[in-house]
Amino acid sequence: MNEFDLIEKVRERARASGDSSGLVCGIGDDAAVFKSATGANLVISTDLLVEDIDFRHNSTLPNLLGHKALAVSLSDIAAMGARPRWAMLSLGLQQEVWDSHFADRFYDGFFKLADAYGVKLIGGDVSRTPDKTVIDSIVIGECLPGRAVLRSGAKPGDQIYVTGFLGDAAAGLRLLERGARLHEEAAKETRESSPNDQPSERHPLDHLLLRQLKPEPRVGWGMLLGDKQLATAMIDLSDGLSSDLNHLCSESKVGALIDAARIPIDPLVRDVCGRRALDPLMLALHGGEDFELLFTVNPGNIAKLPTRVDGISVTRIGEITEASSGARISEGSRTWNLEPGGWEHFKG
Amino acid sequence: MNEFDLIEKVRERARASGDSSGLVCGIGDDAAVFKSATGANLVISTDLLVEDIDFRHNSTLPNLLGHKALAVSLSDIAAMGARPRWAMLSLGLQQEVWDSHFADRFYDGFFKLADAYGVKLIGGDVSRTPDKTVIDSIVIGECLPGRAVLRSGAKPGDQIYVTGFLGDAAAGLRLLERGARLHEEAAKETRESSPNDQPSERHPLDHLLLRQLKPEPRVGWGMLLGDKQLATAMIDLSDGLSSDLNHLCSESKVGALIDAARIPIDPLVRDVCGRRALDPLMLALHGGEDFELLFTVNPGNIAKLPTRVDGISVTRIGEITEASSGARISEGSRTWNLEPGGWEHFKG
Repeated sequence: MNEFDLIEKVRERARASGDSSGLVCGIGDDAAVFKSATGANLVISTDLLVEDIDFRHNSTLPNLLGHKALAVSLSDIAAMGARPRWAMLSLGLQQEVWDSHFADRFYDGFFKLADAYGVKLIGGDVSRTPDKTVIDSIVIGECLPGRAVLRSGAKPGDQIYVTGFLGDAAAGLRLLERGARLHEEAAKETRESSPNDQPSERHPLDHLLLRQLKPEPRVGWGMLLGDKQLATAMIDLSDGLSSDLNHLCSESKVGALIDAARIPIDPLVRDVCGRRALDPLMLALHGGEDFELLFTVNPGNIAKLPTRVDGISVTRIGEITEASSGARISEGSRTWNLEPGGWEHFKG
Repeated sequence: MNEFDLIEKVRERARASGDSSGLVCGIGDDAAVFKSATGANLVISTDLLVEDIDFRHNSTLPNLLGHKALAVSLSDIAAMGARPRWAMLSLGLQQEVWDSHFADRFYDGFFKLADAYGVKLIGGDVSRTPDKTVIDSIVIGECLPGRAVLRSGAKPGDQIYVTGFLGDAAAGLRLLERGARLHEEAAKETRESSPNDQPSERHPLDHLLLRQLKPEPRVGWGMLLGDKQLATAMIDLSDGLSSDLNHLCSESKVGALIDAARIPIDPLVRDVCGRRALDPLMLALHGGEDFELLFTVNPGNIAKLPTRVDGISVTRIGEITEASSGARISEGSRTWNLEPGGWEHFKG
């Protein structure tokens, strides 16, 4: 049993349990959506980050970890087309991390990102742990009634889009695993620049490392696609394109055909892969943690998509098909099944 | 710096950060309260439980842990006078716990308690951990606008009440630490009985062990006190009476005088303490995890308090005083300062 099997099992039990009145969308999407007594649509997501599984203290920095803890949950809210409003944070720290300046710097990174989107920290918990750091990050967003973008709304013929570039974070992770670390000037810039500053000229490797260590959630795109009802379905790319596209297809009961040549891959990733005998397409398909948005658009709405939001463009990479054909990818004249190949925490 | 110092520091930073519009009550209470765009008052709380700090696998059972994970957050929502509606759960499991039937049984206990209060599980996260189990439990509740009961509303002259008995959970913990374990029939009953069954005759030690392992949140009392606006301030007893009363006094900017003779102590606790040279009053004052409610009532409203809710009575244990006198306790002719003596995760 892997984690997706467990989630499916819990989802079945949750369906049969408790009071469903007011539930718009429960387990199985990027975030849950529920209605308050007054009709507001609230969107909530939680992400658990565990030391030595999701991060290592020796390859990141406390402020980057504070940023990332919030960013991953903001990305979930963005994937629902909602506006993030509130955050909560539970921190479990072992004694030696507690005794360092970790917490101060962690919150530096957290609040800097929160302020960029007007998100308010309203609560959380602090606890001791025996030997590893654990972080649970919760973000609550709001959207107009009925505007939340679920994974389940894609229809055959819808066009498939992604924001930004894919595979950067996986390339960054490979570099970290091989011992690469941020240059001091890049680390300093993450502490001192304001979120709206244009980044200065960066060492190319720092750019990829930061795509892994300091992901930028696509909050602007998410809100726009939700507000203007342009996306029929949406998911954030946390597990990897192959896994997340399969999640979306499964929830929408559709198939998909991706054109490999259209997948946006940063030239830097191609360059890093070329030097290290890695296949950039494999990173883009199966590498997780890009935190880009994958969304589907009815052909009639394509002309309404803006070119860029917050400086980030989107790329059409394929089309939704009938469920019977499954999720497939074509490269030149070859077409094959796109099996989920992203990150799984547990193997059967 | 202990955890309360860190929370105070984060609270200061949170005050200055983000968008406060719609925030009713942020960091510093049992749960946060915020307003949706349509005016609904939402109440949210999160609690992190870490193996070998907050529980040990060898002294509890998976279904009891599932119950407790939800119970501690329900207790926070009760302490705000709100109705619990939604839950989220993040689980981090090491491989060997994953490979056991832990998760199934954990969710048995979780759903049984959730169903008792009509609470719906709407999301969460599942992750691997290197070697310890971690659980983050989130509950969202609702209350009528302006009805949330904060820690900050107590006034001099208000009478101080607690639900149930104090010190049971601490006595149960001492027993567990000395090797006591639930009898098989009591363990079985926790799995098989429905929450509304009257418990059968229990072995006295099982009763105390279950008060530690399977706390019952005072959801009915909390909702009643909030709905009918009978409590001026409220907190749940998670850290211990001495600590939690000081939290309430500090937020309300008042003092308190507790009458030791009025503190409700179960005869079982006196008996267990007598045999083990423990002071039952110390357990009742400083032992944590009773998850009873401590609340203050304007003298004009005392006659409106019901005798029992869900079979649980309340006891008046003292009176709110001016801030200058601080939190004090009298026993016969002696009166002394009631210093916080509950659980702190981190010492200076």
